[in-house]
Amino acid sequence: MKKQMTKILVLFIGLFGIANSLFAQGMEQNAISSILEVQQYNRAIHIMAMLLIGFGFLMVFVKKYGRSAITATFLLVSVAVPMYLAIKGMGFFEERSEIEQFILAEFGAASLLIAAGAILGRIKIYQYMILGVLFIPFYIFNEVVVLEDHFHFIGSIADTGGSIIIHAFGAIFGLSAAVFLSSKKQRETPIMADATSDRYSLLGSMVLWVFWPSFCAALVPAELIPTTVVNVFIALSGSTIATYILSVSIRGKINAADIANAALAGGVAIGATCDYATHTEAMIIGVVAGAVSTVGFAVLQDKYQKLFKIVDSCGVANLHGIPGIVGGLAAIFVVDGLNAASQLKGIAITILIAIITGLISGKIVSLFGKPDKIYDDVNEFEDVEEE
Amino acid sequence: MKKQMTKILVLFIGLFGIANSLFAQGMEQNAISSILEVQQYNRAIHIMAMLLIGFGFLMVFVKKYGRSAITATFLLVSVAVPMYLAIKGMGFFEERSEIEQFILAEFGAASLLIAAGAILGRIKIYQYMILGVLFIPFYIFNEVVVLEDHFHFIGSIADTGGSIIIHAFGAIFGLSAAVFLSSKKQRETPIMADATSDRYSLLGSMVLWVFWPSFCAALVPAELIPTTVVNVFIALSGSTIATYILSVSIRGKINAADIANAALAGGVAIGATCDYATHTEAMIIGVVAGAVSTVGFAVLQDKYQKLFKIVDSCGVANLHGIPGIVGGLAAIFVVDGLNAASQLKGIAITILIAIITGLISGKIVSLFGKPDKIYDDVNEFEDVEEE
Amino acid sequence: MKKQMTKILVLFIGLFGIANSLFAQGMEQNAISSILEVQQYNRAIHIMAMLLIGFGFLMVFVKKYGRSAITATFLLVSVAVPMYLAIKGMGFFEERSEIEQFILAEFGAASLLIAAGAILGRIKIYQYMILGVLFIPFYIFNEVVVLEDHFHFIGSIADTGGSIIIHAFGAIFGLSAAVFLSSKKQRETPIMADATSDRYSLLGSMVLWVFWPSFCAALVPAELIPTTVVNVFIALSGSTIATYILSVSIRGKINAADIANAALAGGVAIGATCDYATHTEAMIIGVVAGAVSTVGFAVLQDKYQKLFKIVDSCGVANLHGIPGIVGGLAAIFVVDGLNAASQLKGIAITILIAIITGLISGKIVSLFGKPDKIYDDVNEFEDVEEE
Repeated sequence: MKKQMTKILVLFIGLFGIANSLFAQGMEQNAISSILEVQQYNRAIHIMAMLLIGFGFLMVFVKKYGRSAITATFLLVSVAVPMYLAIKGMGFFEERSEIEQFILAEFGAASLLIAAGAILGRIKIYQYMILGVLFIPFYIFNEVVVLEDHFHFIGSIADTGGSIIIHAFGAIFGLSAAVFLSSKKQRETPIMADATSDRYSLLGSMVLWVFWPSFCAALVPAELIPTTVVNVFIALSGSTIATYILSVSIRGKINAADIANAALAGGVAIGATCDYATHTEAMIIGVVAGAVSTVGFAVLQDKYQKLFKIVDSCGVANLHGIPGIVGGLAAIFVVDGLNAASQLKGIAITILIAIITGLISGKIVSLFGKPDKIYDDVNEFEDVEEE
Repeated sequence: MKKQMTKILVLFIGLFGIANSLFAQGMEQNAISSILEVQQYNRAIHIMAMLLIGFGFLMVFVKKYGRSAITATFLLVSVAVPMYLAIKGMGFFEERSEIEQFILAEFGAASLLIAAGAILGRIKIYQYMILGVLFIPFYIFNEVVVLEDHFHFIGSIADTGGSIIIHAFGAIFGLSAAVFLSSKKQRETPIMADATSDRYSLLGSMVLWVFWPSFCAALVPAELIPTTVVNVFIALSGSTIATYILSVSIRGKINAADIANAALAGGVAIGATCDYATHTEAMIIGVVAGAVSTVGFAVLQDKYQKLFKIVDSCGVANLHGIPGIVGGLAAIFVVDGLNAASQLKGIAITILIAIITGLISGKIVSLFGKPDKIYDDVNEFEDVEEE
Repeated sequence: MKKQMTKILVLFIGLFGIANSLFAQGMEQNAISSILEVQQYNRAIHIMAMLLIGFGFLMVFVKKYGRSAITATFLLVSVAVPMYLAIKGMGFFEERSEIEQFILAEFGAASLLIAAGAILGRIKIYQYMILGVLFIPFYIFNEVVVLEDHFHFIGSIADTGGSIIIHAFGAIFGLSAAVFLSSKKQRETPIMADATSDRYSLLGSMVLWVFWPSFCAALVPAELIPTTVVNVFIALSGSTIATYILSVSIRGKINAADIANAALAGGVAIGATCDYATHTEAMIIGVVAGAVSTVGFAVLQDKYQKLFKIVDSCGVANLHGIPGIVGGLAAIFVVDGLNAASQLKGIAITILIAIITGLISGKIVSLFGKPDKIYDDVNEFEDVEEE
């Protein structure tokens, strides 16, 4: 295993070196454009807070798997961002400013973290890195095909904040990979949480909630940022209230995991229309997304896990998959002049690519073995005392 | 209860729709004004981090009530911000840019969270939402009367960072509400913390500390921001040092709750004068506020709780009430040309409105029942394992 | 002790008052320069998040010393920043804008927190404040001698993000102070962590990781910020991957403390060259720093602790000392036109000043007594229940 890793590392640096030599830096800039770029970097930092602290701690809900979840998050981001930059820097792609390229790399890392959420706790730590190395080229492929419409058969789609490209793609990729990474024994093993792990998870959820507007507005022009930001917060407020009401209504009591997850569904769903929607539309999208997501966690998850014989550790289908598609479809009603056929094609092709590449990746990752105990730090970490 | 909630939700969206149709969006903007708005949105994000992560986790100090505290915070913010925007968007009020309106909504949510701190753990989760629905119109009323001086009988007051309007108002409202929400049994129930809940609380406190300058400087013009920011940090440094010294001096040992709370009193008190004070004045205000607040927690809290037969779960009187008033009074000595009578009238009227509307709201909230067990997640949450 | 503290406080405010009266405020500014200053303040807030939440929680890894570590962090920052501003405001030093002065003060506080990491848990809480009062003047002295080259015998050095001036200085100062603050019994006492304290520590680490680019880019001109930011993230990615690989390779299992610490070594080492390096160089510097740091934690720490008869509680030699020097040396190969002799002299003199002033400070702090129990909150905190 040591050798394998050293190879990965060398390959990684090598790839990076090549890309860098081709990388275009430093156009002439005036004061205003510098200032606008610094404002973008500010949003890039907010997104990084979401990726590491947000996603990382949201996944600490698994009682005994906290250190592994955090370490996996660190590694996934550390593989995904430089790899994305290296590939996009090779010269085959549209040129963008350095900081915009970096934000796009963060989007890729977000999608990867979502995918990893589906199989969290059921692979070894270094397999997360393999997953990342497989994921990023496939993600870029989908980005090029659907978002940039490189082959001119989709048309223009609305997906500013990545409901389709980031959230739905990541979730469906992860669920597909889970087909090869969910043994019978694993399907019967409950995922345990406790009061401390739940509070960590709610912390991660809050970090995501707070910085979500910067995610959606990251590449939006300055003059549209106020409206975008307010839309995202309103959608999140809507999903938070809807989540609470439905969690209590369906289950009789509140479920902390519902709150930590479904409260964010408004952010997922508003992505596609964050810079177009009116505030009322944002509220409706948020409420619907929160409701759908909570029903997913409370009612549907057991069913689809049995149907497809998979385990979805973090419930990414409910938080990212369904709300992402809901958001993508909402754009048809919200965005003036949007071609419905293009939008539907964009969604369909994204789902298709995610399924195929997810299956391939899941199969490959599964070849590298499986952990002795699942959802448990003791497998790979030193000195884990029981609390 | 389900029906009630569905009604609230429908009402909420309806109100929002009306407001939105009246809402003025999109003035022509040039590059500079766009950039300045993006800078305001940055501060708006920092404030949101304070509201959710800061206030939320500060309230996790209650050992068994962590999930409830976090969920309540989520719901309070999700009710308050859209409701404030909806009311202010109805056309009766001064027009402001979208992002400034949003920041004012966040201020309202902050004040509500402070109010809720007084009764934390003694109402059911959905009652926090009722509290929010009652609070916001009263808060806006006080804002219009005192800050905007709509009826022209107060004059201009100094309260840039909300010592009076946000902190003192919220605290006194909450304490007044507590009159109807503190039974004899509740007054005799101790509020338990443990090492893990204390560390969460200190985390929340640090988040508040770090982003406090953005709270105070949120609506300050760009050229005054550096001095405002440094003032706030200096005041917080002063209160932190004073808190430590007085906590040890009075109690013999350090109390973690003193540090988590009173260390922030400098931020509360500097609010009124954050853009006027010299750095030395900021240090003095911070030290005095920290000292007063620590004396409040260590000595006065027991006394006033007995005197008024209330419980103040989070000690909001000590952190927000008294330091808020101290800060409001300090302005008389610090701000050149400030009319002392106006400032005193502003403080007095704010206190009056807070008491009356707090009593009304507390009575109404109390009509919706009380939880079986107080300060305990088991009441309303699924699956609470003991740690 | 009460009297001592009151004296410190009075002295503190007095010093502050004097400095303030001499302090230059308010140059005429146009819109653009105001905007640029607001952007600097944004980075100042990010740095403050690193100082309090980042460093504070990283040090919560000690199982029973969490509240003390957080309180110590609060106090160290609250002493260091105003003291730095007061001294620098006395008129003997280069004039800088208010917000730049504040960022420099934060850099000083960062270096102090690093120094305190070496002796964490082995002094009383108020001794951290004494440490701070001693540290800041010595830190400023080194800054003046090495960075500003006030006595014209070093020449210009490369250290934008403080690999040498901040990280190496702080670490070596702390290790030198530890010579007088590591008794035989203390050297034999293991520092215990558990699953909860480890997760807090990883949280702190992530906060540092996320905001590190703002630390390095804090005083960089706007047009160089994108490249600087991307360099820092790439270096951090490199050290994170290298840390994981080496932690597993050397120990057989992952060590959570390695991940929480050595993953950050890339940020330490890229500091000196963050605005010059190519992205490939940044990756290499990050990988090397992560590798060296992990070897330090896994192999060298026991050896140097025995050799010098010290305890290094947080392993600051491995995270800040060695990677800081590695970063300083890397500049010789990376920065065109840099005078190697100057860079080497700068590093050597910084080490020399840190050793001497650290020894003096450690001796003085040791005179104020030692705690009854080390690494334990019960010494000084009320109500510590066992979890």
